[in-house]
Amino acid sequence: MLIVQKYGGTSVGDVDRIRNVVGRIARTRSAGHRVVAVVSAMAGETNRLLALARAAAARPDERETDALIASGEQVTAALTALSLQDAGVPAQSFLGHQVRIETDTAHGRARIRRIDVDGLRQAVDGGRVAVVAGFQGVCENGSITTLGRGGSDTSAVALAAALRADVCEIYTDVDGVYTGDPRIVPGARKLDRIAFDEMLELASLGAKVLQIRSVEFAKRYRVPVHVRSSFNDSEGTWVIEEDSSMEEVSVSGVALDRDEAKLTLKNVPDRPGVAARLFGPIAAANIVVDMIIQNASADGTTDLTFTVPRADYEKARGLVEQVAREIGASGVASQLDVAKVSIVGLGMRTHAGIAARMFEVLASEGINVQMISTSEIKISVVIDAKYAELAVRALHDALIPPAPGNPA
Amino acid sequence: MLIVQKYGGTSVGDVDRIRNVVGRIARTRSAGHRVVAVVSAMAGETNRLLALARAAAARPDERETDALIASGEQVTAALTALSLQDAGVPAQSFLGHQVRIETDTAHGRARIRRIDVDGLRQAVDGGRVAVVAGFQGVCENGSITTLGRGGSDTSAVALAAALRADVCEIYTDVDGVYTGDPRIVPGARKLDRIAFDEMLELASLGAKVLQIRSVEFAKRYRVPVHVRSSFNDSEGTWVIEEDSSMEEVSVSGVALDRDEAKLTLKNVPDRPGVAARLFGPIAAANIVVDMIIQNASADGTTDLTFTVPRADYEKARGLVEQVAREIGASGVASQLDVAKVSIVGLGMRTHAGIAARMFEVLASEGINVQMISTSEIKISVVIDAKYAELAVRALHDALIPPAPGNPA
Repeated sequence: MLIVQKYGGTSVGDVDRIRNVVGRIARTRSAGHRVVAVVSAMAGETNRLLALARAAAARPDERETDALIASGEQVTAALTALSLQDAGVPAQSFLGHQVRIETDTAHGRARIRRIDVDGLRQAVDGGRVAVVAGFQGVCENGSITTLGRGGSDTSAVALAAALRADVCEIYTDVDGVYTGDPRIVPGARKLDRIAFDEMLELASLGAKVLQIRSVEFAKRYRVPVHVRSSFNDSEGTWVIEEDSSMEEVSVSGVALDRDEAKLTLKNVPDRPGVAARLFGPIAAANIVVDMIIQNASADGTTDLTFTVPRADYEKARGLVEQVAREIGASGVASQLDVAKVSIVGLGMRTHAGIAARMFEVLASEGINVQMISTSEIKISVVIDAKYAELAVRALHDALIPPAPGNPA
Repeated sequence: MLIVQKYGGTSVGDVDRIRNVVGRIARTRSAGHRVVAVVSAMAGETNRLLALARAAAARPDERETDALIASGEQVTAALTALSLQDAGVPAQSFLGHQVRIETDTAHGRARIRRIDVDGLRQAVDGGRVAVVAGFQGVCENGSITTLGRGGSDTSAVALAAALRADVCEIYTDVDGVYTGDPRIVPGARKLDRIAFDEMLELASLGAKVLQIRSVEFAKRYRVPVHVRSSFNDSEGTWVIEEDSSMEEVSVSGVALDRDEAKLTLKNVPDRPGVAARLFGPIAAANIVVDMIIQNASADGTTDLTFTVPRADYEKARGLVEQVAREIGASGVASQLDVAKVSIVGLGMRTHAGIAARMFEVLASEGINVQMISTSEIKISVVIDAKYAELAVRALHDALIPPAPGNPA
């Protein structure tokens, strides 16, 4: 098999841990597989470099910041190759521009456009382990780009897709994907398998196991992803295409996101074009709006409520206040201490009544639902932040069966 | 003017020092010049990375070591560009492969083959400062290479040559090139000017101001080099083509090299081909032999004495002992505590008697000369290491005039 293995910052945190990674790669190779290893920067290194950037410039330019922080993965890739060679395993490091992983020019959040895998293929077919610096690419004009936080996941899955690898293994410091955050839900259990679409919803809902774009890649190119621990040999969670056995589970996981803020534009004149006047400037400021609710009232005005990432709250508030004056709304209200709790499951498509059950559970705990948003396989609610853990635990207990729903 | 400025590791040792560098670049630019800045890794960074390489592998592969240590200059180049932008100076960083600086594949000591300056020219003509990561290049197959210790000097001079820059300024932590090491010779003084050939001899004789290959480049392409301090605005030393005024000085400097070891092959049968038998294997082992002396004696045998870098002593000794057995020499003697003291000066070509004066001075101090080697503009002697400082001081006092020999 051709296996792409991705090792996160904790797994390559120092030379000793890199040696552990080398041991795992060597065992994989001894089992007869070809290996492409994708490595992150040593834990803490990206933050150290970003601190240097902020010390050098009040508003660091994105191109130069990318050139700076990409050095972190460069160091790990070279050290991993050196350590493999030291263990008698032929190896060669590849930087983004050496692979070559071509991206657009959106520094700090670049998207992969094209991957040339000839060099990697030559390396692995020649018996070498190819060690690729994750997180980085190169744009058309030769500048170094980076793919955003967690971008090494996307590097790994994209490489697996381009190489038509048999599996992409994501090594991390947890055992796999859980039905809920174990720090909040004592009964949370590891999932053996999860469908791409479920994982997409979970990733976008605040479960930080995989970068969401890596799951999009995996889904589009049907790359089986195996999320597992770098500290033991247990099977982790397979993120794969939906199959019939999965349908049996109604809810696969409960996710919590505390990083949103809620804004309400009050008594908006209820006429066409108002939403565009509001969300146009917000989109132009690169703020991603998550949930939107509009309540028409009898007096011909309406309240428009929406959520944005908390980091963008100040910027959004300024824009909304300006729009409020322009369109004659009566004012702007906001709440920062909100939490979004979501349940995700393929089975929700066929099992009726999951939404009703969710609201019942929350009501029985005295938790007021402020906003609701649904998709085919998920329901999200915004609630007061102080009820967040209680809501997650109650929903997990009520909706997720205690025994594994997947055949072991 | 188009000016290439090179800043060493001490000058870019932290973000505050980088800000000083930025101030100097900004002033140069305000004076109407275009600037290409070449930066080294932060002081200590290359050694830190090399220590990681040695922790990862007992015998670190040179390709991967280059990929690893090149990250040091990458960080400084990006930080310097960020800091320039923060000061309102448009700037863009360039890595070796982005410039592009093409080298051969001799990792760790690569030689520059070709430089494409289109990108740099575009940057400086567009009003930006081009900040180039020194020390690094890229070979034909896309691997990162490094130019050896002090390689950023060579990067700077080579770029100045390729760009036909008006001057290459080397900013360092000393004021310029001195007639002797001020730590040893109290009367040592800064030279205003020195000829390429003199600088070549001094560089190769242990004066560590400039990497010798940078001087070769400067000489070949006639790049005026200005060695000066990054901590003040004083004029430093101009390394330039020989001119008539220089001829007046007989001796420009006294250099000391403590990094050699002496080996003697005793009672070698005095027949053709013996030297080849000896120095063939030594060259094959990549050991650079410096001085060679052969004393024929009356009994048909000869003693062959030569010096090698002390770092290569063990390897050389093993090879010499093997050759001694093969050719029937009586044995091998060696001495590690030797020092090479040299005087350098263009004037030696026309001023007779400098050598005689040198031996006189040494004899009057009771210092025995073990080996002698001369070129058109230098005389080197190997002496007992314990007399090294004494010899340097005595020669400096006797041969170098106390007042500046160049018109101020």
